[in-house]
Amino acid sequence: MSQLPAQIVFAANVMAAECPSRAILGHLTSRWGVLVMVALQSGTMRFSALRRHIGGVSERMLAQTLQQLESDGFILRTAHDVVPPHVDYALTPLGREAADHVAALVCWIEGALPRIVAAKAM
Amino acid sequence: MSQLPAQIVFAANVMAAECPSRAILGHLTSRWGVLVMVALQSGTMRFSALRRHIGGVSERMLAQTLQQLESDGFILRTAHDVVPPHVDYALTPLGREAADHVAALVCWIEGALPRIVAAKAM
Repeated sequence: MSQLPAQIVFAANVMAAECPSRAILGHLTSRWGVLVMVALQSGTMRFSALRRHIGGVSERMLAQTLQQLESDGFILRTAHDVVPPHVDYALTPLGREAADHVAALVCWIEGALPRIVAAKAM
Repeated sequence: MSQLPAQIVFAANVMAAECPSRAILGHLTSRWGVLVMVALQSGTMRFSALRRHIGGVSERMLAQTLQQLESDGFILRTAHDVVPPHVDYALTPLGREAADHVAALVCWIEGALPRIVAAKAM
């Protein structure tokens, strides 16, 4: 007997509106989700450092994005019981795998930008 | 003298709010943009075929997504002057490169879904 929910006994298919992979895709490709995953590739970061690193993100959107990615199992949140207290964020092993793919896309965009801009201008 | 706009003489950096790579990232990772790029990897498709293939997309959102990706130079729209007239969509060479990375992420999510769901359940 399977211990997994019935819907994933079948192959995941992101083209199907009801497949749970859609929600995961949505979180990993959300406006700030992409940037959080890429930022954490370089190591554990505090909330304030993440916020400085990711240009334009609001405190509220960063908190919401981190919470979503933590709930998906991609990010580990650690609260340190020190004075003053602080919380930091790191990728889980699953998150590192996801981040590799997200970062590959971002890296390609950054590298291809001159060609993209040139193609747009034609 | 460079023929490229001044802002991309500097290295693209998606972490900077004002970098034009942000908009491109937004288009390629938009809810329907991801799925359009993956769908077109298998070849040229008509609008109606794309709409059937991508579960849950509305006519309006699909049209808007295709227009955005066409304007970025990732998709080529061809109107055939036949009776009845029809229009089809294909990836450009630049689009194929982008689609490879988008598809790698989607493929990873589909393959990792059982592990993601299992990690969430713990």
